[in-house]
Amino acid sequence: MGKKRVMLPVEELDLSAVKYEKEVIQAPHLAGFLFKLFVGILEMPVIGSFVVSKLKKQNKIEELLLNTVIPEAPMFKPEFPPQEEEHVISTLDEDGKPEDRVDIALKCLPHYDPIAHVETDPSSPFRYWKIRDYAHAYRSRRVTPSMVAEQIISVIQEFNHKKPAAPPLISFDPEEVLKQAAASTQRFEEGNPLSILDGIFIAIKDDIDCYPHPTKGASIWMHEVRSVQKDADSVSRLRRCGVILVGKANMHELGMGTTGNNPNYGTTRNPHAPDRYTGGSSSGPAAIVASGICSAALGTDGGGSIRIPSSLCGVVGLKTTYGRTSMKGSLCDSGTVEIIGPIASSVEDIMLVYAAILGSTPEDKISLKPAPPCLPILSSDDNLNILGSLRLGKYSPWFNDVCSTDISGKSEDILELLTKTHGCKIVEVVVPELLEMRTAHLVSIGSEFLASMNPDYEDGKGKKLTYDSRTSSALFRSFTASDYVAAQCLRRRIMHHHMEILKKVDVIVTPTTGMTAPLIPPSAHKYGETDMPVTGYLMRFIIAANLIGLPAISVPIGYDKHGLPIGLQLIGRPWGEATILRLASAIEELRGSPKKPISFYDVLKS
Amino acid sequence: MGKKRVMLPVEELDLSAVKYEKEVIQAPHLAGFLFKLFVGILEMPVIGSFVVSKLKKQNKIEELLLNTVIPEAPMFKPEFPPQEEEHVISTLDEDGKPEDRVDIALKCLPHYDPIAHVETDPSSPFRYWKIRDYAHAYRSRRVTPSMVAEQIISVIQEFNHKKPAAPPLISFDPEEVLKQAAASTQRFEEGNPLSILDGIFIAIKDDIDCYPHPTKGASIWMHEVRSVQKDADSVSRLRRCGVILVGKANMHELGMGTTGNNPNYGTTRNPHAPDRYTGGSSSGPAAIVASGICSAALGTDGGGSIRIPSSLCGVVGLKTTYGRTSMKGSLCDSGTVEIIGPIASSVEDIMLVYAAILGSTPEDKISLKPAPPCLPILSSDDNLNILGSLRLGKYSPWFNDVCSTDISGKSEDILELLTKTHGCKIVEVVVPELLEMRTAHLVSIGSEFLASMNPDYEDGKGKKLTYDSRTSSALFRSFTASDYVAAQCLRRRIMHHHMEILKKVDVIVTPTTGMTAPLIPPSAHKYGETDMPVTGYLMRFIIAANLIGLPAISVPIGYDKHGLPIGLQLIGRPWGEATILRLASAIEELRGSPKKPISFYDVLKS
Repeated sequence: MGKKRVMLPVEELDLSAVKYEKEVIQAPHLAGFLFKLFVGILEMPVIGSFVVSKLKKQNKIEELLLNTVIPEAPMFKPEFPPQEEEHVISTLDEDGKPEDRVDIALKCLPHYDPIAHVETDPSSPFRYWKIRDYAHAYRSRRVTPSMVAEQIISVIQEFNHKKPAAPPLISFDPEEVLKQAAASTQRFEEGNPLSILDGIFIAIKDDIDCYPHPTKGASIWMHEVRSVQKDADSVSRLRRCGVILVGKANMHELGMGTTGNNPNYGTTRNPHAPDRYTGGSSSGPAAIVASGICSAALGTDGGGSIRIPSSLCGVVGLKTTYGRTSMKGSLCDSGTVEIIGPIASSVEDIMLVYAAILGSTPEDKISLKPAPPCLPILSSDDNLNILGSLRLGKYSPWFNDVCSTDISGKSEDILELLTKTHGCKIVEVVVPELLEMRTAHLVSIGSEFLASMNPDYEDGKGKKLTYDSRTSSALFRSFTASDYVAAQCLRRRIMHHHMEILKKVDVIVTPTTGMTAPLIPPSAHKYGETDMPVTGYLMRFIIAANLIGLPAISVPIGYDKHGLPIGLQLIGRPWGEATILRLASAIEELRGSPKKPISFYDVLKS
Repeated sequence: MGKKRVMLPVEELDLSAVKYEKEVIQAPHLAGFLFKLFVGILEMPVIGSFVVSKLKKQNKIEELLLNTVIPEAPMFKPEFPPQEEEHVISTLDEDGKPEDRVDIALKCLPHYDPIAHVETDPSSPFRYWKIRDYAHAYRSRRVTPSMVAEQIISVIQEFNHKKPAAPPLISFDPEEVLKQAAASTQRFEEGNPLSILDGIFIAIKDDIDCYPHPTKGASIWMHEVRSVQKDADSVSRLRRCGVILVGKANMHELGMGTTGNNPNYGTTRNPHAPDRYTGGSSSGPAAIVASGICSAALGTDGGGSIRIPSSLCGVVGLKTTYGRTSMKGSLCDSGTVEIIGPIASSVEDIMLVYAAILGSTPEDKISLKPAPPCLPILSSDDNLNILGSLRLGKYSPWFNDVCSTDISGKSEDILELLTKTHGCKIVEVVVPELLEMRTAHLVSIGSEFLASMNPDYEDGKGKKLTYDSRTSSALFRSFTASDYVAAQCLRRRIMHHHMEILKKVDVIVTPTTGMTAPLIPPSAHKYGETDMPVTGYLMRFIIAANLIGLPAISVPIGYDKHGLPIGLQLIGRPWGEATILRLASAIEELRGSPKKPISFYDVLKS
C-alpha cells in the first residue's frame, strides 16, 4: 500500500519547479570470467528473475512503470503535431529517382574550388577527401575508381591481419569491390557517371542488407536463419547512384550496445586511439569513415548508434526523422525508434548521401504524415540571415553533466562562436522527466528487439550470443506487456515536452556524449563487458531523438586533453533535417579543418 | 530446439489452402468456492506463474507469440489504407454542434407516420417506443418528459428492491432525473426543444463519466481513486441535445468479461429470461433498452461489449470505427481496441444517438486519417438500388460453428431474404488466422487494461476485485512486453486479410454470438465464475472489429427455440458506418417487428 504515485497531466507540469536530477545507474561493472558467471545466474529460472527484478527496482524502473499513474494515452510511434514550413530550402522528391535527389543536393552546396582542396596522389597520406574531391579527381581523369579500390583493398587486408583482430569490415570481398570499381571506371571513361556519388566508396553496417553479403548483425548465427536476396532499400538507392559498396561494417552485436565491443569478430579500434572504443553500435561505419578509407557509411540509430560512434571518432553522423528513411531490408525493420542514416567526414557529404537514401515505405506513409524532405541551400546568400534567426535551446545543468570539463568547455565555446559570428541566440530551456525518457526508451527498444529475436532465441540461438547481449536480453525478458504500454504513455509526455520546447527554440543543443572514447579493458576482448555507467554517459543526450523520432546530428567540434574527439549534438524539429544540417555546416566552418587530419595510412602505422 | 515456426509473409498466404480450425479453449469452468481457491493459487508467487504458463501453452499462446517468426511490422493502432467514398450518403460535421448533426440524421430517416406507431398511454404496457414516438408525443402535448420520468423512476426502484438484486442501474438519483425532466418539459412548454433527442431517456454505462455520478466501472473502489468532475465528451454531447441521463448502468466489473456477471452489485438479468445472462460487458445498457425503460444507452466495446449484450437481449448495438467517437472521460480512454457506441431498440434510434455522440479527440486526429462521418439516406429512392449492389461476405464453416442450428438457421434465412428481396449477393470468403486474431486481441486488450490498472492494483486494490477479474489479471500479468509487440505484428496481418476481403465484398456477415443467452449458474452469484468456453462462444465473431478497428453492428433477427434473441453482425469497411446502418435497417424491415414485444412492466411481472 502507498506505493502509488500519480503524475500530473503533462500540460499542468510547472517547468520552473523542475530540478535536474543526475542520472544514477546502479549495476555492476563486469568483464571476463565474472561476467560469464553473472550471465549464468541471470539465465537461471527463479534466481535470474529475482536478480533482474532487484536491479530494476534499484534503478526505479518498477516504480516508474508499475506504480505510477501516467495520465497520458500511449503513443506507440512518433505522432508529430503539424509542423510549420522551414526557411529557404530545397525540396526533394521522396518518390523520385535517388540520382535526381543527389543532383538537387549538389546544387545546395557552396561553390567547389578544386584548388582549395587537397589534390595529392591518392597513394600518399591525405586529409579527408570529400565526395566532391573524389568526383573532381575522377572527372579530371587523375584517378580512377579502380585505382582507389586497389588502395582500399590493401589497407583493409592489412587491418584484417592485425593481432588482435579489429576489422572495420566483417564481410568483405575484394573481387566484388574490384568489379564495381571497374564498372564505375568504365562509366567515367565513357563520360557517363551515374551521379556525383559514382565511384564513391561506402560501407554498410552489418545490420543492413547489401547483396551478396550475408547480414549477421555481427553475430555468429543471424545469417543462418535469415538469408539476403537483395539490397535494403537504402543500399539499392546508393547502388543506383554508382556507389561502390565495400562490404559490411563491424558493429556491437545486434546493435545492443554503445561501445562497439565485439568478441565475435574483434572490437573495432578508435582511429584516434587504438586502445579505445569507437563507440557503437555502428563501430565499423564510424571507424572506416574516420580513418579515411570510405567517404561515408550507412549506420542504424535506435539509441544513438550513429551519433555516439560519430562523436567518439570525430566524424559527422545524421539520425534522420523517424520514417524519413526506409528500414526495409535491415534487421531493425519493425521497431519504433530506429532509422538508417549516413556517417561521413563532412556535412556536405552527409547531405549528398542523405539525399540518395531517403524515402519511406508505403506502410510508413499510412501511419505517418511526413513533411516533404528538404535540404538547406548552403550556397544561398540568405543562409547567413537564417543562421542569425536561429534560437538554440540549452538545458545547462544537463549540458554540463559530463565526464570532463573539456566536453562542456568546448561545447560552450562553439555556442559562443555561433552567437558572435552569426548572431544565433542561446535560450535556456528545461527538459523535464529525463529518467522517464530513458526508461521509456529502454523498454521500447528492448521489447521490440526481443520480439524480433524470440523465435530464434527459443530455438537455441540465445546461447550463441555474447554475454553482453545475454545480459541485455535477461533484462528485456523481465519487461511485462503492461510495462511496454506504460512506456508508451511516458512517450507521449516526452513528445509533449519537446514540442513545447521546440516552440521556443529551433534546435536543442547538447554534447553528443557525456564522455569521450572509453578505454577497452583488456579483459573485455574475449567475453565482452557490461558497464552501465559508461553506457549512461554515452547515451546521456541521445535518447529524445529515438524515443520521439526527432532528427539529430552529431558534428565534431574539437578534441579533449587526450586528443580524443568531442561531438556536439543538434536536435531538430520533426522532419527538420534542413535546419540542423545548416547549423552543423556553420559549426564545421567555425571549427575549421580537423586539427588532426588522419588517413588509413596513419591508423595502420599507429 | 525445433520449436521455431515461420509464418509466410501475409501477401503470400494461399487462402484456398486455409482450413477452418474450430476454436479449442482449454481452461477449467469454475464458480463458487473452487473458483475462490483457484484464484488463490493463481496469485501465489511461483506456482501461480507456473499454472498460468501451463494454461498459456495449452492454448498455444506461447507458441504463437514466443516461437513464431511473424514477418510483419507491428501495427499498434488501426492504420487503415485509403478508402473509397461510400454511396449516396449524408455527411456529418465531426466538429460541428451535436444538435445540428442529429438534425441531419433526422432527415435521413423515412417519413414518420404517427398513426402507424403505437400511441398508447405510457403508463400501460407498450412495444418499444422509438425516439420519434416520444418526440411526437411530447410535441403533441400528450405526454411530458416529467410524466415519463416518474414512470421510469418507479420501475427502476422496483428493480432495486428485487431479491436477489439485479439492478440495470448502479448509480441512480431520482431527484436528478426529475430535475432534468422538468427542464425538458419546460422547453417543450416554451416550444423550444433542443433537438429530436430532447426529453429522451438514455442510460450511461458505468465506465463512462456522467456528472455528478461516480464512475466505478461496477467495481467497489474505482470511484475512490478517480473522481468525476464533468461529463465524458460523448455524454456532454447528448446532454446538449436535451437528453435526460437516467444514471449509470451496470456492467461486468471493469468491462473484463462477456456475461455481465457482477457479484458487487448483482448480475443484471436478461429481460427475455431472468435466469439468464444479458451478456456483457455492457449488461445494464442492453437490459435497460431491451426492457423498454430507456430509448437508448451508451456502452463501450473493446471485445464485443456492446454487440454481445445487444444480441443476447434482442436490441441493436453499434460498434463504431476506432477513433470515430471520443473516449475522453471513459475508463478505457487509452486503449487501442475500444470505442463508445449506442445501444437502442431500432436502427433509426441508433442513427440519431450516433449522430449526436460522434467526434474524435485532437490526439486521434493526429494519429488517424478518418474519412468524414456519414449516414445512409434511408428515405431516398436510391436506397433500394444501393442495397441491391451490396456483396455480403460469408465464411461458411465459421458462420455455422455455433452452439445451435437455430442461430445458423435464422442467420441463413435472413441472408436469403436479403438476396430475394433486395438482390444482395452472398459471396463466400475465407477469414484466415482466427487463432492469431484472438490471441493478438487478448494480449492487446489485457495489457492495455493492466497498464491502466497497475498502480492501483499494486496499491492494494487488486484484492478488491472480483475473482473473475483477478483470474483475468493473472493471465494478463503473464504477458511479456515482447508478447505485446508480437501481437501487434499479428494485428498487421489481420488488417491485411480483412482489407483484402473487403475489396471483394462490402460487408462481412456473421452471427453476432455463437450462442444465445447462457444460464446464470446459481453458484455464480456470490463469487462469479470463469467459463472460457462460454466466453469463446460469445466472442467467436466479435474480435476483428476491435483488433483492427472496423465498424460493426448487431441487429436482432429472431429467436431460438427457447425464445431467446438471436443477433446478426454486419462488419463494415473502415469508417463505413453508413453501409452497415443501411443494411441493418433493411434487415429490420424484413424481419418485422419484434415477435415478443416487451416493456419494463412485463419484465417486472416475470
